[in-house]
Amino acid sequence: MEISQPYLMFLGEAPDQLAAKTARGVLDWRPDACVGQMRLPGCQADLGLPDMTMSEAKAAGVNTVIVGVANRGGVISDSWTALLEEALELGMNLAAGLHNRLADVPALATAAERHGRQLFDVRHPTATFAVGNGKKRSGKRLLTVGTDCSIGKMYTSLAIEKEMRARGMSADFRATGQTGIFIAGRGVSVDAVVADFIAGCVEWLAPDNDADHWDVIEGQGSLFHASFAGVSTGLLHGAQPDALVLCHEPSRSHMRGLPDYGVPAIDVCMEANLAVARLTNPAVRFVGIAINSSQMAPDDVAPYYQSLEEQFGLPVVDPFKDGAGRIVDNL
Amino acid sequence: MEISQPYLMFLGEAPDQLAAKTARGVLDWRPDACVGQMRLPGCQADLGLPDMTMSEAKAAGVNTVIVGVANRGGVISDSWTALLEEALELGMNLAAGLHNRLADVPALATAAERHGRQLFDVRHPTATFAVGNGKKRSGKRLLTVGTDCSIGKMYTSLAIEKEMRARGMSADFRATGQTGIFIAGRGVSVDAVVADFIAGCVEWLAPDNDADHWDVIEGQGSLFHASFAGVSTGLLHGAQPDALVLCHEPSRSHMRGLPDYGVPAIDVCMEANLAVARLTNPAVRFVGIAINSSQMAPDDVAPYYQSLEEQFGLPVVDPFKDGAGRIVDNL
Repeated sequence: MEISQPYLMFLGEAPDQLAAKTARGVLDWRPDACVGQMRLPGCQADLGLPDMTMSEAKAAGVNTVIVGVANRGGVISDSWTALLEEALELGMNLAAGLHNRLADVPALATAAERHGRQLFDVRHPTATFAVGNGKKRSGKRLLTVGTDCSIGKMYTSLAIEKEMRARGMSADFRATGQTGIFIAGRGVSVDAVVADFIAGCVEWLAPDNDADHWDVIEGQGSLFHASFAGVSTGLLHGAQPDALVLCHEPSRSHMRGLPDYGVPAIDVCMEANLAVARLTNPAVRFVGIAINSSQMAPDDVAPYYQSLEEQFGLPVVDPFKDGAGRIVDNL
Repeated sequence: MEISQPYLMFLGEAPDQLAAKTARGVLDWRPDACVGQMRLPGCQADLGLPDMTMSEAKAAGVNTVIVGVANRGGVISDSWTALLEEALELGMNLAAGLHNRLADVPALATAAERHGRQLFDVRHPTATFAVGNGKKRSGKRLLTVGTDCSIGKMYTSLAIEKEMRARGMSADFRATGQTGIFIAGRGVSVDAVVADFIAGCVEWLAPDNDADHWDVIEGQGSLFHASFAGVSTGLLHGAQPDALVLCHEPSRSHMRGLPDYGVPAIDVCMEANLAVARLTNPAVRFVGIAINSSQMAPDDVAPYYQSLEEQFGLPVVDPFKDGAGRIVDNL
């Protein structure tokens, strides 16, 4: 799988900025790969990139249109088809990470074939996985886990990889979701594999490696999310992490998409993750806390970090703002 | 999806009785639905049912031929195609729970369409599920959970449904695996759905119901199985059970398929299941312990049950031998 850059980020009718987190993530970590955005009427997201038509994107050198928007159903809207077909006709590829496939939209499949273009459905793994075997693997692994979904696990993982590589350590970010796959160019959408193979696909994604090598594995969901905890559980078991980093967004009033569910306390969330992770790696420990402080008042940040550091004896950082140096120091 | 009974059990060239355990399970719980068996040369399994040709099965009133055999690869053999095609020509449906699909065998797909018959690939869910929403549903639910896989969760669930119905209670067995689906005629193979929808498909399977109605939901896997705990976690959340029954097989020396993993202690397993289940139903409690005593020395059974009853204050039974009356008493 080789997704050709640069990209046009297609944002559709994204109802808020969070719905465009895929596009935002690619832009944050691969800014040179993103030359423009396309927004449809009603779109409430804005990446700050030049707004472009498909023709303008092609003229600007775009090779692939990334459908960088997630609606709750996670499907390709009928209202997008004509525009995406136009992209193919102009000679660009399409990539999406939604529940239905670009390749299953007849007009797109036909246009891709006619114009010799590629459709990348990164949410639909094409590899065949084995069930997990739980066997101890060589090399070291770090996994990010969260109190909730959409809370900074991918960003934290990428910041840790970046810091490790800056120090000359051997490290690879292992993508488990659509945005990460667009960024890394490879990976597996763990929440899109058949349920029997959740742990097995993570064993495949982070295989035996050199003793001093770190796989930095992108977490998914939360053990406390009533929709997705099965994915988080299998990911914890398949990762058999040596190190965990807890990701948290302190302003969130309830679990994402679940108004009746409160966000768990950090200590409760840590204990639950350790209990699950110990099954496949009894030596697992937390090495840091990553705070998404984007919604916090600036004056509140330092006292909050200090109180957490005193409570847990762990480095507390916002990896996107502060980098992950203090977490890597603690490995 | 409603698989029309009665059935002919197709056993193929099953190398031993264990290879026909799906067919055996259907016969044990729905004897009236099984009118005959078909065995090919070399078959070492025998359900004790009349051996029938396809024509004889049709004449005996069979509506569906169940491919109730698991060969090592879990696939439909080429040598079966002509016979299965004959069944469709005679006006019977086909159902299988194997890794490849009846619908992907061209001769069968063509014959089914020509004769207006149905192909049920129960291991390949065709319904589209929503992600779980965690909303409290009306009616009551019981879920069987286990220290390990293949430990009696389906049998325990069916015994509880049978007991409830015998008492005039409103109850439905909800199948989550292939054998259970053949027994109930409907259900969803939870381990075969896409990981994002594990909880959601169970919410669909056991929807809102009358206040005094019990759904008895078949558990899968184990929270302590490094290959399949993700499935078990999502199932717990989607079921939002009021009542749990712990299933255990005391002679097992390690987790099924994982020689390096020991079987958890019953109290540890119960606490872990309660911790997960409380997310979607804080009032959840254990109501009984179901022991698969088939490998125990007869003299060991009573003292073992007594020690467990003293430790946990719960009824302890082997549902297949003793029925589930004492568990239902405790609801």
